[in-house]
Formats: sequence, C-alpha cells, structure tokens
Amino acid sequence: MPVQNLPDIQKTVDQRDVAINHVGVSNLRHPISVKTQADGPQQTIATLTMAVGLPAEVKGTHMSRFIEALSEYDQSLSSETLPLLVHEIQERLHAQEAKIEVEFPYFLERSAPVTGRTALMDYTCRLVAESQGDETEVTVGITVPVASLCPCSKEISEYGAHNQRGDVEITLRTVRDDHDGAPMVWFEELVAYAEESASAPLYPLLKRPDERYVTMQAYDNPAFVEDIVRNVAVRLRDDERIAWFKVRVTNYESIHNHNAFAEVCWSRR
Amino acid sequence: MPVQNLPDIQKTVDQRDVAINHVGVSNLRHPISVKTQADGPQQTIATLTMAVGLPAEVKGTHMSRFIEALSEYDQSLSSETLPLLVHEIQERLHAQEAKIEVEFPYFLERSAPVTGRTALMDYTCRLVAESQGDETEVTVGITVPVASLCPCSKEISEYGAHNQRGDVEITLRTVRDDHDGAPMVWFEELVAYAEESASAPLYPLLKRPDERYVTMQAYDNPAFVEDIVRNVAVRLRDDERIAWFKVRVTNYESIHNHNAFAEVCWSRR
Amino acid sequence: MPVQNLPDIQKTVDQRDVAINHVGVSNLRHPISVKTQADGPQQTIATLTMAVGLPAEVKGTHMSRFIEALSEYDQSLSSETLPLLVHEIQERLHAQEAKIEVEFPYFLERSAPVTGRTALMDYTCRLVAESQGDETEVTVGITVPVASLCPCSKEISEYGAHNQRGDVEITLRTVRDDHDGAPMVWFEELVAYAEESASAPLYPLLKRPDERYVTMQAYDNPAFVEDIVRNVAVRLRDDERIAWFKVRVTNYESIHNHNAFAEVCWSRR
Amino acid sequence: MPVQNLPDIQKTVDQRDVAINHVGVSNLRHPISVKTQADGPQQTIATLTMAVGLPAEVKGTHMSRFIEALSEYDQSLSSETLPLLVHEIQERLHAQEAKIEVEFPYFLERSAPVTGRTALMDYTCRLVAESQGDETEVTVGITVPVASLCPCSKEISEYGAHNQRGDVEITLRTVRDDHDGAPMVWFEELVAYAEESASAPLYPLLKRPDERYVTMQAYDNPAFVEDIVRNVAVRLRDDERIAWFKVRVTNYESIHNHNAFAEVCWSRR
Repeated sequence: MPVQNLPDIQKTVDQRDVAINHVGVSNLRHPISVKTQADGPQQTIATLTMAVGLPAEVKGTHMSRFIEALSEYDQSLSSETLPLLVHEIQERLHAQEAKIEVEFPYFLERSAPVTGRTALMDYTCRLVAESQGDETEVTVGITVPVASLCPCSKEISEYGAHNQRGDVEITLRTVRDDHDGAPMVWFEELVAYAEESASAPLYPLLKRPDERYVTMQAYDNPAFVEDIVRNVAVRLRDDERIAWFKVRVTNYESIHNHNAFAEVCWSRR
Repeated sequence: MPVQNLPDIQKTVDQRDVAINHVGVSNLRHPISVKTQADGPQQTIATLTMAVGLPAEVKGTHMSRFIEALSEYDQSLSSETLPLLVHEIQERLHAQEAKIEVEFPYFLERSAPVTGRTALMDYTCRLVAESQGDETEVTVGITVPVASLCPCSKEISEYGAHNQRGDVEITLRTVRDDHDGAPMVWFEELVAYAEESASAPLYPLLKRPDERYVTMQAYDNPAFVEDIVRNVAVRLRDDERIAWFKVRVTNYESIHNHNAFAEVCWSRR
Repeated sequence: MPVQNLPDIQKTVDQRDVAINHVGVSNLRHPISVKTQADGPQQTIATLTMAVGLPAEVKGTHMSRFIEALSEYDQSLSSETLPLLVHEIQERLHAQEAKIEVEFPYFLERSAPVTGRTALMDYTCRLVAESQGDETEVTVGITVPVASLCPCSKEISEYGAHNQRGDVEITLRTVRDDHDGAPMVWFEELVAYAEESASAPLYPLLKRPDERYVTMQAYDNPAFVEDIVRNVAVRLRDDERIAWFKVRVTNYESIHNHNAFAEVCWSRR
Repeated sequence: MPVQNLPDIQKTVDQRDVAINHVGVSNLRHPISVKTQADGPQQTIATLTMAVGLPAEVKGTHMSRFIEALSEYDQSLSSETLPLLVHEIQERLHAQEAKIEVEFPYFLERSAPVTGRTALMDYTCRLVAESQGDETEVTVGITVPVASLCPCSKEISEYGAHNQRGDVEITLRTVRDDHDGAPMVWFEELVAYAEESASAPLYPLLKRPDERYVTMQAYDNPAFVEDIVRNVAVRLRDDERIAWFKVRVTNYESIHNHNAFAEVCWSRR
C-alpha cells in the first residue's frame, strides 16, 4: 500500500445516528504564556483538553490537528485570546462546535503584611472557551487557598479556635457587550475577592511579626464555610461585569478527617 | 461558660441574602454495603459527599448530623435505597433540599473466555441522590475499563494495530413511573453495555489460550473512541428504562502521551 | 496453532545478564479482610503490588499466577498472616524472592471526648512482606490524621494560634524472636502513639461540647511538626517490640499554601 | 509585646534526644528554569521539597528561610547547579545536612518518524541533591512514556498483539571525579535510552504515514516489561558515567485493569 494513498477511515459515513458532543484530546501538557494584569505575560505549563462536536453522519475526527493548532498558536492566553484558538480549531477540523479547557499554575508576588518580604504564591487557574458557530462563551476559573477560623469554636471555647487551610474555587462568565466584547476579569481581582472573604489570606513567606499578624487577623475574622462562600458571592454579585458564577469553598477541617464545603451558583437574571 | 448552654451560632440570622445551594461534608470515607444483581449485598468502602440547601436567612448548618445519619443508616445501598438516606438528611437538618454522592469500588467475578478461570474485577461506581421536597432524582454512574484497537492503524498498516486500555464512564437517570417508581438499572448491565461496545473486555485473570482469544477479538473489532461512545449510546438509547445519559470514553493512547476522548449527552425527550 | 500447545515465551533463556529485583503486578484492587485488635476481622478494599525476583537467565514471569494466589487466599490479613501469601507466591512462581505490598482504609469506632458520641474514623494502613528464601521481613505502616497547633504562633500572638490538619505516617519493623516469631503491633496502638504526640486527635463526630474540648486541648498542647515527629519517635523507641521505624509528619499549614514536614528514621542498633 | 522582641521558640533547647533527619517544606510550587542540552534554558514549573537535618538538641528550624533562598536563587537548574542551592540552604539555616527535591515537566521537540512534523512532548523530570557537610550527592530522574507490545500475545495469536502505553522511570547517580566533578547526564540522553529499549517511542503528533510506521515498528519489536527494564539496564550499565541506577517500567496493560511492572536496581561496584 503506497503511503501517499493511505485510506482515511475517519472520513467515512456513520450510520448509528449519534451526534458526538465532544471528541478530542485530553490530559495534554504544553507550555503556555498567560496575560497578567500588572506586567507582561507569564510563562507557565498548562494541562489542556481540546475537542470538537461531530455530526451524526461523520465517523471520526482528526486528532493530530488539535496538536498542530496548539503548536502554532503564539498568543498570550487570556479570556480575550482563547477564543482565537477555539476558532482556529473550528476551521482546521471543519467543526461547527469546539471547546478548549486550559488549567495552569499562576504565580503572583505577595508581600508579607508586616515586614513586606515578598515571594511568589501559586494559584491554580482555568480558562474554558466553547464555540457554537460564531458565538463563543468563555468561562474563567481560579482556586485560591485561604485560612478559615471557626466562629462556633471561637465562641464556645474559653481560648483558641480551630482554623485550617481551605480552597475558594470561583468559576464565572461575564456579561456580553455588543460593542466591546466581554469585559476582562483578572485573576488578580478574583484572588482579592477570595482573600477578603476568608478569615485571612495565605502567604508564601512570613517572618515572625507577620505570623503574629495573620494569627490575630484570622482570630478577629472568624468565618464558617457558609460565610466565606456568601462573602465571595456578594462580591461577585456586586461586580456588574459578571453574568454568572459558581463558588465552592472547601475547608480541610483541623478537627475532622473529612472536609466541610459550601457551594453557591448564581445567574444575573 | 456552662457546657450545656453553649451558644449555637449556626442558628443565628444571616443578612447577606445569599441562599447556599449545597453545604455539607466531602471526602468522607465510610464502609457501605451495596446491592448486587446476583447475590446478597457486597461490602465495600465509599467516599461520600453529603449536603443540604441552606436558605438565605440561616447562618449555618449542623455538620455533625450528616455523620450521625450515615452512621445509623443500615440499608444496602442501591438507586432504590439511597433516597431513604437523603430524606433522613432532610429531616435531621430541617432542609428542603439535600444531596448525597457516593463513589465506591465494586467487584464482579469474571470468567476468562477460553479457560473459564475466574477472579474478581474492579469497577468504580457512583450513586447520586438529590431531593427537592418530596421529589428525589437518582443518578447512577460507573466507570468500566475496556480495550480499544484503532481501526485506522489496522487499515493502514501491513500488520499489527495500536491498541490500549480505555475507560467507559456512564452516567444515567431512569424514567419515572408513577406506579412503580424508577426502574432499577444494575451495574452488571452497564458493564455489559460498555464491554460489548469496545474492541474487547478486560479481565482480571487470563491464561495463554485466553490471551490469544482476546488479542484476536480486539483485532477483529477495531473501534475508534468515537465508535465506542456511539455503541454505548445506542445501547442506552434502546433501553427504555433510561431517560437521560452521558457517556464519556477515554483512551490512554499507546502512541501518544495524551489521551483521546469522546462524550455524548442524550435525553429521551 | 492448537491452543493446547501455545509456546511459553516467558520460559525461554535470557542473555542480557540482568537479574530483575521485582517483577509483577501493581495497582490491583481486591477485597480483603484485616485482623482487628478488639473484634473479629474487618472487611475492606486493598490496593496491592505483588512481585517476585527473576534470575538473570529467565526471560519472564507468569503474571496470572499472582492473581490466582490472591484469589484463593482466604486468611484475614495481618503482619502475621501476610508472609503465608508471600510464600505461596514464591512456590507458585518458583521464585527465591517475593514481595507483597497492601494498602487499605481501616476503620475504628471513636468516641467524642465529652458527649461520647461514636462514629467510624478512617485510617490508611499498609502491610509489606518481603521474602528471601525462608526469611520474611514484614513492614507495618499507617497514616494517622491529627491536629497541630503552632507554639510559635501561640507565643507571639496576643490571642489565637494557627492550627491545621496534619498526617503522621509511621512505618516500622519489629524485632525477631526465634521462639515466638515477630511480635504483633496493632494499628490501634499506632493510632494512639500518633494522637498522643499531636496537639489533639481528629474525630469523625463532634457535638458542640466536644468541639469546645478539642479546641482548648489543641491550644493547651502546641506542637511544631518537629515536636510531633519527636514525640512519636520517643514512643516507638520506648516500645521494645520495635526494631526499626520511620516517622514522617506533614502539616497542611493554615498560613501557607505549602506544607511543613519532619522525618525521623531510627534503628534499634 | 513589642513586635521587634518576639520570642524565637525554635531556638530553644530540646530534651528528647531525637535528631531529625529531614525537616522543611514540601509541595511547594515555583517557576524554575532548567538547562537543556541543545539550547538555552527552559522555563517550567517545579514542585519542590526542601529540608535540613536538625540536631537532637535544637527545638525547631526556620521554615521561611527555605522560601527566601529559593526566591533569590537565579540559576538555571541542572545536576551541576542544584548543589549551589543546597549549600545556600545549609548556610542560611546553619545546617550540617540539607536536601532538595525538584520535580517538573520538561519538553522536547519531537519529529514524527515519516512526515517529520514536529511538536512538543512532555516528560516528568526530577533532581535531588543531598548534602552532608561539604559532600553533595545528586540524583537524576526522569519518567519517559513508551509503547510496549507483548511478545507472548504476538507469538500465540494468528494476528494482532496487545500493546499499551507504559512508563520507564529512571533514577541514577553518576561517578565522582575528583578533577572535574560529577559528569553531566542529560535528560535528552535518558529519553533516548528509554525509547530505544521499548517497542516504540510515543510522539506528540503523528500523521497517518507516521501512525502506520509506529504501528509496524511496535509489532516488529515486541518486548515484555522484563525486556524493557533489562534493555534500559544494559544501556545504563554500559554508560561509564553512571555509578548507580534504579529503573522501574510500568505497563498499563490493555488486557487487564491492573498494571505490570519490573524494577532493576544496580550499583557499579
């Protein structure tokens, strides 16, 4: 069989009458650059899922084209630029629908609250873009680790209060604006929303005066998992750029071996 | 402060006007027993999430009651009995809405195709029950590992064909029947649907004649990830007990370091 | 090719002059029963690795025999009985050396410290048995979650102290006694060693008076990760049954997004 | 309490007579740059463990100094430069012993075997440096995914052969040379050793002529997990730079839901 005439089974006709919502590649690691609010782009490593919709009559997709599109993509990723890659996928794979999910660690320089000593803190961020024809919907996500201190434990105990690390996971979509496109919400803004909503932020680097500060800050701001999720929800609801969000807070309880969690899902209308 | 009069902060009134969709415990490990199609119940270990909805005006829930309800529950779990535990949660926590997710390994004795040698094969199963008042919706899930052999690779190569382990993940809800309740769909039936849809089943124990058999069986039944997801979809669509399903097939490609996947979501009407 | 005369490639001679230390199966899930200190055996689900040594001149091992040996094994597992399974493996695979690693969740009923309310708490346990000819060495392991409260944070702050969930991971081997074999060390004893060494135990179920108790107990017993690892080490060193141990304590810091850990390795002589 | 005179509990004297082998931070994510064989350094994201030994009489270490040392470190990482960071840790923490473990994804451009199309392939790499006084020992590690095709399945079947993705995990230390220091072994060389030892390499991007090529390449080079581990062992043993190695090969069997693995540990003398 001459190699230049290899049959293309994926192109043959399918009889089962089952359209496929998503078909593609997953668990793909690739270096990317991400737009930051303050400075130029940040280099990081992403794990990606890339998929297209497949009509009922088409047998298979061409998986290698996802890798080709990703390899040739040279933009810094953001909620504004990811749609370009989704449209590129639609074109290369002749697809009406396409979807890309990107997850990556993202770093911000944080200053300790008293000494001002700085170091990098890591957050896990997500961008999802899903296209139907010309319409693309982008979802932005981040997981921000925080500290929570239990109000019940503080209230009922003569001294002390149990506290613990927790994760605030925010997922959101912004309103559409026919003139300017979707407004940008920066990961930096979501970190602030999450940290202001908890008992205290986490830091990469704390000296003793800083540790004293955050210990008392947490004690002064007790918050149930229910409080944190509501505090974040109020901030997101008050931000008029945001059309829809889901917030899930998980506390890795220091008195139990299971976790406590709370989740709020909200839509502007 | 006398211990018998400890304040109950969770009961106080909240002003933020944010209802919480789900609040509860997650990543909780507990032994359970599960109904099997053939024999009596099977003992296994579950990881559970248990939650209630919380009205906007209530400050917090009482997490310990989830553990109490679970500890006292003495039924073998199935899609028929899990609603009892959800209702118990609703009552104990005075909640209008409640949700339980249970995931566990489940074992079936499988016979090798030629020698008939038997051993236990493991599947990961899920049951989710979500109640709103008196209405409870149950979702059944299973992940069935299978073998897939690439039709393109077989067709274009003079000999051989790449093949690999894959996972068929089925999630479904059944139709409601006002007389008899929701019909039971057994994990055993879903294993059959998944295995019949792939190039070959996996086995816990194969002797050489069995290995010869499954090697040729896979070569005789090449299937793209798109084919497997469609084969499963057709079987589930033809099963009149099933009202809604999602199927996701993931192949751990033996020629790439990333995976190929396909997903179909379907509703009876 | 008649199926009864299939060639056995694994039995052919290998020329590369490389003996293989361990060859076998891993990530194998199987139900097991485990001996408990108080009552009869406990049913649980294990993840196993089973392997043999392979001399330089032998091409391959017979993987299916591991599964056969495990399927037919009908003992309750403990550090005393696991060697029987290792010897069974040695015989069936004609191996001089064999090794089995078993990891499983293990449950103990725990009483809340004030109300006495009971529920099941999960621990992750490990048993490893390695044979060279007639000699078998057993290693016992457990991960016990605990609470730690930072002494520095308590000392330097006017009120409060950061605390968090941590894991105490104990791995040990016992002394050999020519008359009675290796002494038994129960998982229950290791849970006690770990919990007594930390700021406070974790519980599956706490009511408000219990939460008050453990909050103050942790505040009264501040312990660095260094303190906890040393406290456990002292207890294990004072236990004359124990010949060797490694203890690793990891604190999921509530002020950082990274963990603090400390590790001690010790041998009786 | 004036913040400038906060007590330093970590500096107090400990009476338990337990020296701590390793105390420090773990699960710390940080951007790093890594030396590549061909070009300049590569930006990636590491997960780090950093620790020191603590004498029996010292109560605690100063965790924040690990972060300070890492933040200020500005070298491209390699087996030659990591010791500089370990020595920095020894100095800042006044420690006789220190240890750093770094794990990170590493990318190489790979060309498809027929069409020559290129894309990036990811490998997981590890560097460990452990110092005792002036002596530092560096361990280099990599996990290379490969394809394996079962020789038994090929031999006993009339057509086809089961094959699957596998991982070759190499860990090694090089000989010490008093004049020139330890020789460099590049990740690129280890990728070659692993891929030459398996049935076929994996690729990020394959077009149909490439897929045909690797399908037949794997069929032409059947290899048990035992063969692959021995092939790698022979290559490492023949490389005179290498003083010690451990190789573990794991095949994600396409006929079973468990894995097959083989491990060889070797020392030059």
